[in-house]
Amino acid sequence: MPRIKLVLEYDGTDFAGWQAQPDHRSVQGVLERALAELLGARARVEAAGRTDAGVHAEGQVAAFSTDRELPLKAYARGLNGLLPPDVAVVAAEEVPADFDPRRWAQGKRYRYRISNRPVRSPLRRRSAWELFGVLDLEAMRAAAPALVGRHDFSAFRAADCEAAHARREIRTLAIEGASSADVTIEVEGTAFLKHMVRNIAGTLVEVGRGRRPPAWVAEVLGSKDRNRAGPTAPAHGLTLVEVLYGQGRPARLSPVTASDE
Amino acid sequence: MPRIKLVLEYDGTDFAGWQAQPDHRSVQGVLERALAELLGARARVEAAGRTDAGVHAEGQVAAFSTDRELPLKAYARGLNGLLPPDVAVVAAEEVPADFDPRRWAQGKRYRYRISNRPVRSPLRRRSAWELFGVLDLEAMRAAAPALVGRHDFSAFRAADCEAAHARREIRTLAIEGASSADVTIEVEGTAFLKHMVRNIAGTLVEVGRGRRPPAWVAEVLGSKDRNRAGPTAPAHGLTLVEVLYGQGRPARLSPVTASDE
Repeated sequence: MPRIKLVLEYDGTDFAGWQAQPDHRSVQGVLERALAELLGARARVEAAGRTDAGVHAEGQVAAFSTDRELPLKAYARGLNGLLPPDVAVVAAEEVPADFDPRRWAQGKRYRYRISNRPVRSPLRRRSAWELFGVLDLEAMRAAAPALVGRHDFSAFRAADCEAAHARREIRTLAIEGASSADVTIEVEGTAFLKHMVRNIAGTLVEVGRGRRPPAWVAEVLGSKDRNRAGPTAPAHGLTLVEVLYGQGRPARLSPVTASDE
Repeated sequence: MPRIKLVLEYDGTDFAGWQAQPDHRSVQGVLERALAELLGARARVEAAGRTDAGVHAEGQVAAFSTDRELPLKAYARGLNGLLPPDVAVVAAEEVPADFDPRRWAQGKRYRYRISNRPVRSPLRRRSAWELFGVLDLEAMRAAAPALVGRHDFSAFRAADCEAAHARREIRTLAIEGASSADVTIEVEGTAFLKHMVRNIAGTLVEVGRGRRPPAWVAEVLGSKDRNRAGPTAPAHGLTLVEVLYGQGRPARLSPVTASDE
């Protein structure tokens, strides 16, 4: 039975997140509905990460199995004709029958976007957290390296995060945007806890606002106490940019559990 | 009577353009309504350019006169509290009583954005013209210089353009985006005819698609015949980025008439 991997882009504004829920419009829900129409049979779709309500994706990865033998481009073209304007299939490929988009992932890249100027931005209102006071990006950059590497990120997980443990590795964490009003926090890591990127963004912003010194971020991390970190940054600033896979089946599975962001 | 210059950003998606029209939601309409509420009196607003339905702005300039003496920041803060989410005042300043945002303008910058990949883009659907076939950017770049300089742009004006003549000057015309799916055409000129940027974009895209050779663009310009140019590119790819003013009153007024884009 062929298994198909899809790369998806979506505007999260009008979705109640990835996961199908009764009476809510979800990315999984609209995708499974379009697939059922294309295949003439129901197919269950799994994703690399369950993005929250409002979170966008440029490169979410999903997979499903089907006994229909369609040419690959039928998935991109066919599904894009059936999907609503705020979600699209960017690429499709056939993968091994046991491909698990979450467990095979070797990393993810997220972008957190901030509009930082004294007035609100109509053109960025769906894609950026709007902060009106000037952020001290140098202070944020001084704080960021404390989070890079393999750490227990308990201080940065959601209260209802169900991961078995909180050890995760951040490979890179970059804060871009100099004098510009368009600031981005780019994070790449092996895997992420629930709300981890948004809690990191909210914590770095506390430093950028001058409410805390850069060294405070290392203290928060070391405390493993969620109550010490900054507020969770709003969902609409976050984009899942890419899910990274190696060649073929991973040598060891990544330590990701059901509560990943 | 103080005269106030406003710099405006708006998402053109849900506006029937700049100009107030009965039974249509216009930027001028919502701005004049917010101003009436702030000032307690009606004020007529004039803009540097009448953007069409769907066209966005990062730096539209508008002006009005009022006998209320409010601190300048009341205009940005006060109006932004009264304006809908898709339009905002970015800056406000007091200007001479005879300031005319159109006639004093010494130039304008526009950006035309194209999403160029085989599938549609949910995240760019409001801000870019989606073209699925690969554009030959080098061919477009080879064609563009023919349009730079002072020319009769009759071939690139809308059929209902009311300008007295079609001589305009393009100072710079750059096509950005290499392998990326995000292509932009950045144009700066003294002034523009109705649909001029969109007709230039549509014409350069004919070359990018390989339907015409680069030299054809110079021929179209020379013909002064609107029927020879490419199709008008869709409005939602266009953004008025900036209106340029010199210091104080212009030495000579720019040759702009009521039909400017």
